Amino acid sequence: MAIGFAQRMSEVKASEIRELLKLTQKPEVISFAGGLPAPETFPAEQLARATARVLAEAGAQALQYSTTEGYPPLREWVARHMNEKLATAVSPEQVLITSGSQQGLDFTGKVFLDEGDPVLCESPTYLGAINALRAYGPRFVEVPTDDDGMIPEALEAILAREPRARLVYVIPDFQNPTGRTWSLARRQAFMGIVRRHRVPVVEDCPYVEVRFEGVPLPPLKSLDEDGLVIFLGTFSKIFCPGMRLGWVAAAPALLEKYVLVKQGADLQTATLAQMQVAAWLEDHDTEANVERACAIYRARRDAMLRALDREMPAGVRYTRPSGGLFLWAELPERLNARDLLEACVERNVAFVPGGSFFPNGGHENTMRLNFSNMPEERIAEGVRRLAGVLRELLGRSEPDSKVQEFEGSKALAGN
Amino acid sequence: MAIGFAQRMSEVKASEIRELLKLTQKPEVISFAGGLPAPETFPAEQLARATARVLAEAGAQALQYSTTEGYPPLREWVARHMNEKLATAVSPEQVLITSGSQQGLDFTGKVFLDEGDPVLCESPTYLGAINALRAYGPRFVEVPTDDDGMIPEALEAILAREPRARLVYVIPDFQNPTGRTWSLARRQAFMGIVRRHRVPVVEDCPYVEVRFEGVPLPPLKSLDEDGLVIFLGTFSKIFCPGMRLGWVAAAPALLEKYVLVKQGADLQTATLAQMQVAAWLEDHDTEANVERACAIYRARRDAMLRALDREMPAGVRYTRPSGGLFLWAELPERLNARDLLEACVERNVAFVPGGSFFPNGGHENTMRLNFSNMPEERIAEGVRRLAGVLRELLGRSEPDSKVQEFEGSKALAGN
Repeated sequence: MAIGFAQRMSEVKASEIRELLKLTQKPEVISFAGGLPAPETFPAEQLARATARVLAEAGAQALQYSTTEGYPPLREWVARHMNEKLATAVSPEQVLITSGSQQGLDFTGKVFLDEGDPVLCESPTYLGAINALRAYGPRFVEVPTDDDGMIPEALEAILAREPRARLVYVIPDFQNPTGRTWSLARRQAFMGIVRRHRVPVVEDCPYVEVRFEGVPLPPLKSLDEDGLVIFLGTFSKIFCPGMRLGWVAAAPALLEKYVLVKQGADLQTATLAQMQVAAWLEDHDTEANVERACAIYRARRDAMLRALDREMPAGVRYTRPSGGLFLWAELPERLNARDLLEACVERNVAFVPGGSFFPNGGHENTMRLNFSNMPEERIAEGVRRLAGVLRELLGRSEPDSKVQEFEGSKALAGN
Repeated sequence: MAIGFAQRMSEVKASEIRELLKLTQKPEVISFAGGLPAPETFPAEQLARATARVLAEAGAQALQYSTTEGYPPLREWVARHMNEKLATAVSPEQVLITSGSQQGLDFTGKVFLDEGDPVLCESPTYLGAINALRAYGPRFVEVPTDDDGMIPEALEAILAREPRARLVYVIPDFQNPTGRTWSLARRQAFMGIVRRHRVPVVEDCPYVEVRFEGVPLPPLKSLDEDGLVIFLGTFSKIFCPGMRLGWVAAAPALLEKYVLVKQGADLQTATLAQMQVAAWLEDHDTEANVERACAIYRARRDAMLRALDREMPAGVRYTRPSGGLFLWAELPERLNARDLLEACVERNVAFVPGGSFFPNGGHENTMRLNFSNMPEERIAEGVRRLAGVLRELLGRSEPDSKVQEFEGSKALAGN
């Protein structure tokens, strides 16, 4: 076929996560690959009642077109919720309802990035953000990151040599893929630097409320005095992901651009879905859902860490996250996690090789493990299989009792 | 603020339609501006029952992430429906569920268009398509169009001098904004030309089933032997727009690109919305809805045409569409419809000035009138007000009984 596609299509590749998600549909697979919330936390019955009410009382409105910015009561809830839980000072007019926060990432690319523009991100960073932004042809500049978050001196040096940097993209809480959380000092240092350089920040914040222990830390948005931080929020982890509801909260001059892009992209997020969730929120809060989810995920994280501590051979290091859905493991450098995955799939266990989370490649000895979607005994069994394959690859037959952790991971666990 | 935006943002402007939609929310306004279906046709009660069933029987699945391509039973329904109603030969695997067909337009730009690429369209064409494609920086080439559709000789000449043309975008049935429908001969001639030039076609088909009289004509997709036609469909006019469900149907090599773009753009269309509609479709068909809508719109179109025939001064010409939601009017050349709108808004009547539908500007003496969303007596009153303002602008005080129609509009009325 002689049909010509846009140049960007040579960069737009199948997402490993999405392809792997297909694996998880076979019930015999123990999958640590996806990022699925536990369905036990979804309030299906309550939502059915809320839906019946919306359709009986305002069916004509719920099934009609509405405004691009979003359903006003839902925008009000988002602003109130953020201000109460996250100490921000957002007004409803500063909120745009999106079709999941993934859409906020796509819009970020459209609003900010021309071909070749530098975009800064943590190293590693969220694969879905890499996919969304890559369509706009930027140059990814990975900023070195440790267990306390993005390293300020590294960021400062990069911004000094990249004056055309359009954007810094970060996930400060229970990061995808590493599970790491930035310390307060790092958040403050980061805001000082971006303020001096006047560079916009996209703070992707899906997991902030999914904290198992320790004290919540202020989001960058709450430390933002100059309107530089664009906050991406989502109902996926505090309510459910299957309705695809997220939001962008930003200063008016920035939000306006996102609204314009939304008009061209899909006119508006579904009216009915917004009204369903707004009706549910009238009688319920997300807090009970979040508590239920945290209890489940905490137990599953513990099960995974216990199994890793028990099963993993020496030379394997992993994070001990205090929240979120993921942990991150580093294998001995001579191993390639893609090879490991191939062998694992034959034993019906799956994960995401970590190399995918580095926009400029490398780090093939890393992996992301999801702990939110499998019951504890399946997690133990999955890690057992995984460690077995790994030991075979390492040419060993017995587990080694000595386990190394990341330097500083004790600080993480206390977060 | 020194924040830098992508160059494309200088092209992305507020949509006149969306801004005007805000007007329609004041109940005293008689609005011919939007493109709203009549809410009397929305099956709210039936949908409430279908939703209750989905959430009771498969709540965990409905509220969870799912695949990018869409919910399989809904893809199957779309393929079957197209094949039965539109004589296509589409398989479920050739269908991608989108967040409304507007999203299909955005993806079209992303898949096909680099900065400066020629994209061909009817003159005039759908404003939402102009907005969606404009974000990718193409050069719009307007192909002359008459009451029978795009003019083959003009298309042939343009393709000969634009060998880099990436795409032809068309709306062959009850076009937005003109209400015109392409004749069978024009469809066949068009397909012959694009086949010879091997240029992909995006056939935007929201209104094809909203036909008030005459015999349905085959969509381009049904005449497509080479897999060149990308069909955009929507539930907005055959079910309701507030759930934002549409689809792309295309040959595998093309659909694959749309699926990749969808992954980066928003991962997937909402699982619950897809399952709600699929459940509704198990017990109902869209046919009854469409029949109810057609009966209402036919009466409203008749009311609008009667009022126009009665009230409009000489020198005003308008189409007599056999379906869809819109008709198109041309004022005497010395008048500017934007001035007319300003004066009309003071009398609480609104429409969309036609100049917005020409990507390269001009044609300021035209207007689009929507007839689907107002009861007949309001339509009569609105046209009376509109004609009153128009006569004032024309410096007249009495209506003129002589009405001119477009040449060939009798053919249209018989479609």
